[in-house]
Amino acid sequence: MRHTYVAGTATTTFGRHPDKTLIDLAVEAGEMAIADSGLERSEIDAVYFGNFLGRGIDGQGVIASLLALRLGLAGVATTNVEGACGSAGIALRHGVLSVAAGAATATLCIGAEHMTRPGTQAITKLLTEAGEMATDGAAGLTFPGFFGLVANAHAARYGSTRDDLAAVVMQNRACAVANPNAMFRETVSADQIASGKLIADPLRLLDCSPISDGAAAVVVTDWAHATSSRNGAVRVLACEQTSGPVGIRHMETLTSFPATVTAAQRAYKSAGLGPRDIDVVELHDCFSITELVNVADLGFFAHGEAHTAIAEGLTTNGSPGVVVNPSGGLLGRGHPVGATGLAQVHEVVGQLRGTAANQLPAAHVGMAHNLGGAGATATVTILGAA
Amino acid sequence: MRHTYVAGTATTTFGRHPDKTLIDLAVEAGEMAIADSGLERSEIDAVYFGNFLGRGIDGQGVIASLLALRLGLAGVATTNVEGACGSAGIALRHGVLSVAAGAATATLCIGAEHMTRPGTQAITKLLTEAGEMATDGAAGLTFPGFFGLVANAHAARYGSTRDDLAAVVMQNRACAVANPNAMFRETVSADQIASGKLIADPLRLLDCSPISDGAAAVVVTDWAHATSSRNGAVRVLACEQTSGPVGIRHMETLTSFPATVTAAQRAYKSAGLGPRDIDVVELHDCFSITELVNVADLGFFAHGEAHTAIAEGLTTNGSPGVVVNPSGGLLGRGHPVGATGLAQVHEVVGQLRGTAANQLPAAHVGMAHNLGGAGATATVTILGAA
Repeated sequence: MRHTYVAGTATTTFGRHPDKTLIDLAVEAGEMAIADSGLERSEIDAVYFGNFLGRGIDGQGVIASLLALRLGLAGVATTNVEGACGSAGIALRHGVLSVAAGAATATLCIGAEHMTRPGTQAITKLLTEAGEMATDGAAGLTFPGFFGLVANAHAARYGSTRDDLAAVVMQNRACAVANPNAMFRETVSADQIASGKLIADPLRLLDCSPISDGAAAVVVTDWAHATSSRNGAVRVLACEQTSGPVGIRHMETLTSFPATVTAAQRAYKSAGLGPRDIDVVELHDCFSITELVNVADLGFFAHGEAHTAIAEGLTTNGSPGVVVNPSGGLLGRGHPVGATGLAQVHEVVGQLRGTAANQLPAAHVGMAHNLGGAGATATVTILGAA
Repeated sequence: MRHTYVAGTATTTFGRHPDKTLIDLAVEAGEMAIADSGLERSEIDAVYFGNFLGRGIDGQGVIASLLALRLGLAGVATTNVEGACGSAGIALRHGVLSVAAGAATATLCIGAEHMTRPGTQAITKLLTEAGEMATDGAAGLTFPGFFGLVANAHAARYGSTRDDLAAVVMQNRACAVANPNAMFRETVSADQIASGKLIADPLRLLDCSPISDGAAAVVVTDWAHATSSRNGAVRVLACEQTSGPVGIRHMETLTSFPATVTAAQRAYKSAGLGPRDIDVVELHDCFSITELVNVADLGFFAHGEAHTAIAEGLTTNGSPGVVVNPSGGLLGRGHPVGATGLAQVHEVVGQLRGTAANQLPAAHVGMAHNLGGAGATATVTILGAA
């Protein structure tokens, strides 16, 4: 397999974009990522578009082909991929595979979502399509509802508390303050979290990532072309994709997502690295409880120790171990679901380039972890200095 | 790039399947293709699922992950791809790329659609999502409407007639009679075609591929594993994917689909072959007029000569040139849109194995051509004896 490199990345600001369409946002991120890559448009052979909700909201198929036309890339291979909230991570992996196979010189991977227009109830309903509709969906289980069950199971098994969940929220919101692309730019207090509307016991409003609009894009290429990158190329050390249970009836446990565990194990093996080699990770904190599960599934802490470690600040910038979600994560940066996996890569690349919000003193190896549904899909990407 | 092989293929019968779901059909085809490949389930690393209408009909995301669970493939990489009626061709190409990149030993590519339940009006509306909704869709242009415009443009430019369209229908319907998996098993007469309901002038009912249920699946692998194939492996000589105009405002002409032209050119170059080397092609005759356009776009005849050649029987079994759609094509076999691209590969592999309906005396090289939307995407795959 050929080595692959990220030559360009971009995100739009995440938040509310009432004056833009899904396609506008995707084009905006794509244009910026191409500019950042320093590549000519003629060198780009494929567009991958990750999106989950746009079809249900706008009723438009073949969006990747519309994007190619808008971006001056007429004729390239255009593929729409869907893996719920993991759609963008899957788009990236296929951008990587195309270059690795020698089928493309460079690929443009875009993820986007425009979620704020239809309203909370409509979006909540569409998001249930990421679970098993014939069972969990039919029973009325929402996505916050599922992660509320996860939080309760985690508390029962490992003794995590509401304070441990609040610690995740406060840390990620504090990081987002410095990120100009983040949706939320204010810190939150324990009192604010505790007094937030109860969404799905024990999860309150600020435990939930927000309904957001936004897009992110990444250009992947080979070494010969990565040298054109305006701000420096980064090497893809591993990019793995797995699947797991879709509905609760498939799950052996609620406190671990096997798709994440397997994707991380494969990524470590592929990169010849372990959890201790990772300086920074952008992981999928769609809810505060998800971060507690993920840091354990990714191998950074034992499951029973993850919540204590986070509450003690062991995952913050300046700590000796892995730094988690310095961008603010999904809780602070926002979660336009189809964009998230590529926004994570943008943030990790920023850390490796030395240009990120909350920049680490020395970041050599970074990881992005994108989860789809209730663990139906996962991607883990490890990036290192070129 | 590693050489890749098709080790197993299958289709369900195409037609009406009121007692089965989309997922049932996909699993049925997947099981048969795995059995045909002779591979162990543990050797399959990825599932690609091509589908266009299921999300709008059933409201279920992450279907590839549900398929993996049902097929005993838990944990493998699962990807849902969408490219309108070209979805299955795109699924195949990514199954090929994964193996070519060395990221998978074997991949299972499944395409499926369950279209008969919602009724014609609802399906016609959902199918418009394959065009540009903001322009053509908003103007009320249906897909038959678009291809009616193509037929009128073709008649004006090249002098093709209603009889030329009828010749395509009669030929493909005649072929379908011998295909046990086809939806239509009776021949049709010129009178029956001429007296059919007018759908979109000049296209009448039998000029249009039918609303169908069905699934098809293909297992792609490397040479070391292709030897397990129960009925013989076939080599992938080329598998190319392109994009083109989405809405009419993007089109320079209505009588050619540039995505097909470019995909064919690249496939010929990649395989080191030309149109004269192709013994048999399964191409995307979603409407009778589309076959007239395609045989020219694929390089088999000049545009002004294609309709005459077909009317003269130069594309039927026994003719010295390329044999077109011996399976019955979409007009005879049926067109469950997300399944079609893989059903075409199943039919071509049957010809190369010597087991097809309307078997050619000697088929050494075959082609499958899958079109998405009004030319928004195209894939061209060339297969040859291993």
